[in-house]
Amino acid sequence: MDKRFFVEKRKYNIGEIITIEGEEHKHLSLVLRLKVGDTIDCLPNDNTIVVCNITSINKNKTQASVIEIINQPNSVDNVDVFVGNLKGDKNEFLIQKLSELGVNKITFFESKFVTAKLVKDKSARNEKIALTSAKQCKRNKAIEIGTDLKFKDLLKVLCGYDKVLVAYENEKTISLNNIELKSSQKIAVVIGSEGGFAREEIDEFINNGYCSISLGERILKAETAGVVFTSLVMFKLGELGK
Amino acid sequence: MDKRFFVEKRKYNIGEIITIEGEEHKHLSLVLRLKVGDTIDCLPNDNTIVVCNITSINKNKTQASVIEIINQPNSVDNVDVFVGNLKGDKNEFLIQKLSELGVNKITFFESKFVTAKLVKDKSARNEKIALTSAKQCKRNKAIEIGTDLKFKDLLKVLCGYDKVLVAYENEKTISLNNIELKSSQKIAVVIGSEGGFAREEIDEFINNGYCSISLGERILKAETAGVVFTSLVMFKLGELGK
Repeated sequence: MDKRFFVEKRKYNIGEIITIEGEEHKHLSLVLRLKVGDTIDCLPNDNTIVVCNITSINKNKTQASVIEIINQPNSVDNVDVFVGNLKGDKNEFLIQKLSELGVNKITFFESKFVTAKLVKDKSARNEKIALTSAKQCKRNKAIEIGTDLKFKDLLKVLCGYDKVLVAYENEKTISLNNIELKSSQKIAVVIGSEGGFAREEIDEFINNGYCSISLGERILKAETAGVVFTSLVMFKLGELGK
Repeated sequence: MDKRFFVEKRKYNIGEIITIEGEEHKHLSLVLRLKVGDTIDCLPNDNTIVVCNITSINKNKTQASVIEIINQPNSVDNVDVFVGNLKGDKNEFLIQKLSELGVNKITFFESKFVTAKLVKDKSARNEKIALTSAKQCKRNKAIEIGTDLKFKDLLKVLCGYDKVLVAYENEKTISLNNIELKSSQKIAVVIGSEGGFAREEIDEFINNGYCSISLGERILKAETAGVVFTSLVMFKLGELGK
């Protein structure tokens, strides 16, 4: 099914008429040229698929009648990723790639060596990238974009996780080979920005009981490290093949 | 040491005078503004570092005297990656990311569902991307760019490997969890283009004794699959932390 449209996040009932407007309506009517009677999947972005039959299409809106409601989580709700705010379009790159990898939520933070300013009005753009990616990779719930964090608030938020894994280029002994991960744990993956972490920031992580993790001897760019590290965590959780 | 310059690939001797011209000379003299007496690392792109002292800099060339020759392989010479030719700038994206991951060689191929034409005059551009990436991630030998292959030639080339791992989205049973990899093996990682592989192509791989591998249930874009799959292979080889 490629006919997937995000709709308002609320509870839907069989027989109810759903209205699709705006970008999603345009995509449905002008790009995909769907017709009355066609079946579509409406996504309230909560892991349910609301299967509908189109009942009418006009210039400004499409209406469709709900015929089935399926609950089908297909992202990994116990893995969140925290990334030091990156320059250029690298935040967007990571939203896309981590969305494909099934990550539940991505949050950007400021730390000592972050040079890119966190920009408030980027959040609408980031949400849109998350929704577009969700359609492409057929997630039933888009990757969440967390509220930007200062470093001291990051430390507080991380307290809520069972396992916090921090990629650190100067870590020489501990790698993901030494860490046991379970799907029942709430896991936070933490990646620094281009400048990495300051020694005192790593000390704060360690003092809080978090694990600093080596990704080997080679130099990975920050955004590459984000994809690679998350891939390995997902692999260990059985999410990249059992 | 950030002062790294690629030089002609040949044998060098202590005391010899090396001449650096063209782009590398400009980068050295105009961007980095190095001076006579400064120490630089010259890279013949064969895993050796030829440490030199600058003896003269003029408008068109820099000359430097060899003071030490270090043999220091820091890429993974037993892992090559083969990728179905991708659209847009995705080949370039993969050259960069697989270079960072330490891959020895990347080769693009044509298969049934490849829609992007292989363009001959791209090879110079690809080589340049490989060298630039090698400088950034401090490889002493740039990732090699193989000659473009037709599918039937790909099958022949893969005969030379001890282990051939083909990412296949319809594979349901075998994942990298079931495969033992050793650093003593010559390993080929094979990724399809945006359209994936045709069933008969996968059959040909399997008839040749190659392994088709699942990357799990989620839908990864071709270029994401390239980075993720290679990351997992490198992890299993101990190259992303022991």
